[in-house]
Amino acid sequence: MSDQRIEAIYRVPGAAGEAARLARAIAYEQTVELPEELVTAPEIVADVVGAVTAVAPDPEIEGASRVTIDYAAALASGQIPQLLNLLFGNVSIYPGVRLLDVRLPEAFLAGVAGPRFGVDGLRRMTGVHGRPLLATALKPRGTPVETLAQMARDFALGGGDIVKDDQNLVDGDFEDFKQRVESCHRAVADANGSTGRRCLYLPHVAAPADQLERYFEFVHWLGAPGVLACPMIMGLDTARALASEYGLLLMAHPALTGSYTNGDTQGIDHGVLLGTLFRLIGADISIFPNVGGRFAFRARDCARISERLRAPLGRLLPAWPCPAGGMSLDNLDAMAADYGADSVFLIGGALLGHSDRLRSSTSTFLDRVRSHFDENSYVWALEPDLGNNPFDRD
Amino acid sequence: MSDQRIEAIYRVPGAAGEAARLARAIAYEQTVELPEELVTAPEIVADVVGAVTAVAPDPEIEGASRVTIDYAAALASGQIPQLLNLLFGNVSIYPGVRLLDVRLPEAFLAGVAGPRFGVDGLRRMTGVHGRPLLATALKPRGTPVETLAQMARDFALGGGDIVKDDQNLVDGDFEDFKQRVESCHRAVADANGSTGRRCLYLPHVAAPADQLERYFEFVHWLGAPGVLACPMIMGLDTARALASEYGLLLMAHPALTGSYTNGDTQGIDHGVLLGTLFRLIGADISIFPNVGGRFAFRARDCARISERLRAPLGRLLPAWPCPAGGMSLDNLDAMAADYGADSVFLIGGALLGHSDRLRSSTSTFLDRVRSHFDENSYVWALEPDLGNNPFDRD
Repeated sequence: MSDQRIEAIYRVPGAAGEAARLARAIAYEQTVELPEELVTAPEIVADVVGAVTAVAPDPEIEGASRVTIDYAAALASGQIPQLLNLLFGNVSIYPGVRLLDVRLPEAFLAGVAGPRFGVDGLRRMTGVHGRPLLATALKPRGTPVETLAQMARDFALGGGDIVKDDQNLVDGDFEDFKQRVESCHRAVADANGSTGRRCLYLPHVAAPADQLERYFEFVHWLGAPGVLACPMIMGLDTARALASEYGLLLMAHPALTGSYTNGDTQGIDHGVLLGTLFRLIGADISIFPNVGGRFAFRARDCARISERLRAPLGRLLPAWPCPAGGMSLDNLDAMAADYGADSVFLIGGALLGHSDRLRSSTSTFLDRVRSHFDENSYVWALEPDLGNNPFDRD
Repeated sequence: MSDQRIEAIYRVPGAAGEAARLARAIAYEQTVELPEELVTAPEIVADVVGAVTAVAPDPEIEGASRVTIDYAAALASGQIPQLLNLLFGNVSIYPGVRLLDVRLPEAFLAGVAGPRFGVDGLRRMTGVHGRPLLATALKPRGTPVETLAQMARDFALGGGDIVKDDQNLVDGDFEDFKQRVESCHRAVADANGSTGRRCLYLPHVAAPADQLERYFEFVHWLGAPGVLACPMIMGLDTARALASEYGLLLMAHPALTGSYTNGDTQGIDHGVLLGTLFRLIGADISIFPNVGGRFAFRARDCARISERLRAPLGRLLPAWPCPAGGMSLDNLDAMAADYGADSVFLIGGALLGHSDRLRSSTSTFLDRVRSHFDENSYVWALEPDLGNNPFDRD
């Protein structure tokens, strides 16, 4: 593939001739959005219209085909929003068309920063090596702040590595956000002071778009290492830009992505969306519903996501798969085998449902994780920087 | 319905008992994201967990049910991103669940501005009354700026009302954007000076999230009346916030929305997404693929969108349906009957394919539109304000 071309593979309905016609229609739709006969300028046909480079029977879906279209990299205009538009904007509305894969050339990737921390960076931040990280979510919404903070503290004291907010923890205003997030962050920092470990607290950032920046700014000021965000709700490139601006680790939540991944004959492949695209916007960790949980992702869907988070992609760092969605001790053996050491195991209800013994259940879980891996853990000194709070003046 | 409750209607797989169980699972999933047995605090059960208020056989899909869940309005935290999360965040990943309808209480709507101009405002801006507005799109990408500007001029001279950029017109950088947009805006302003009419030019705004604001600022400075944006790509609330901040009319494009509207047993109802939700973010005009074009929207889908753009919704202004997607003179009679006077007819290729006679084909089209309606057109004086350009210093 040329280093100036973006290659997209779509599943389309129909065989040979019908698929080839549809592929050609997509190549025009996504670039010039005009019927073929109206595109006459030779330079536009050559440089702008997509090129159909392959049409073949789909090996998985009877009666469907796989078509490869390659687009001039310049059509993505060096930005992720336009890449989304180019790959799947209008064609998202075509019945039966699924974006199965995408290959991005250096011409595009050179302008993308990707994960700020990635696998190695998060290992350095946590000081945990050689095994998966253990994560949980603070919930449910409606729980008093002190209780949430206590849960965060207990999880950290029990040996947990990442405590994030549930994506339903959304505050009525900035003052509530500050109070809640600072309480949880301090609770984890206190616990880290006791344990000598470095558990990370990642607050969920969700606010009207015109207020988002100060939420990120506050997290940065507080010294929290990163955020949980729902890119499809916040806007994929907005999540990228703000996490990047404030140097924050980005844990990406799949809320609102299901309509893309649902079904095999529409939408976007699990690995492309929750793997490649989330990594392009800088997700250090991508959460997805694991096989065997309360959602319906198949093992192959999860494997695709995991593979795309780790596969070579320009100079972008690999990111962490985070299987979740109703996981418990019972799933641990399979998760260890499926995802290996460089993964985050997110256990919500199975830990937090028994908050009277959250610390001990976290320890139990951690012991079980350790039993699968040869851990080599470095202890980092924690230096919380919680000085004068400029946001109190707001 | 209480004025403190948000009511959502979902299609779910299965009949009575199975549907009721799934409804209850959704009510927990979308609010506390914990199994029922782990939610014990009475105030959380009462105030946070959703309430299943109805389960009934689905009148359209054999073997499916419709369930009504009502949520405390406070759970939307007074913001559109969290409303999206509450209504469909995690449940987007549930197989077979479709958000069919939503009713929003004053408690939520009071905080939403909605369309800035709406039907009456756009009539005042254009001076066109009593008939649909005639719109076109500048395309294809790759066309020299002077040619695009000439197309815009010809369309305005021919009597067109709104000329927008194609959503594939995305620039490599801000300088290119400024040059292109200013050229097209001036061309339309010149034409308006000749005709005494007030055709509007709406540039497509697409940029990395951290650069978006200056694009909107430039459009505002230029005196262009509004923008074309793709909310699902830009981020729904980002489109709202920036159009609002700069007082710009928002024409919303459905790129990347197809995976929500696709299919009847997943995703989000056409009218909820392209009608209600787009109107909530302030879309004055919502573009969608009309029945009979090259996409597969059915008449009922289009009718739902149109209905939701116009139905009472708090104090929000009604917005304009904009049927599009391969429309030509042949579709005009049906469009006139389906959408009535307060609609925007977007004709792309059928006008622009013959750019050597764009002016006359626009006039022909306009005559045909007029033949269906009793037009009462007011002419407004145009006062373009194109003084010293502060962006030239960038």
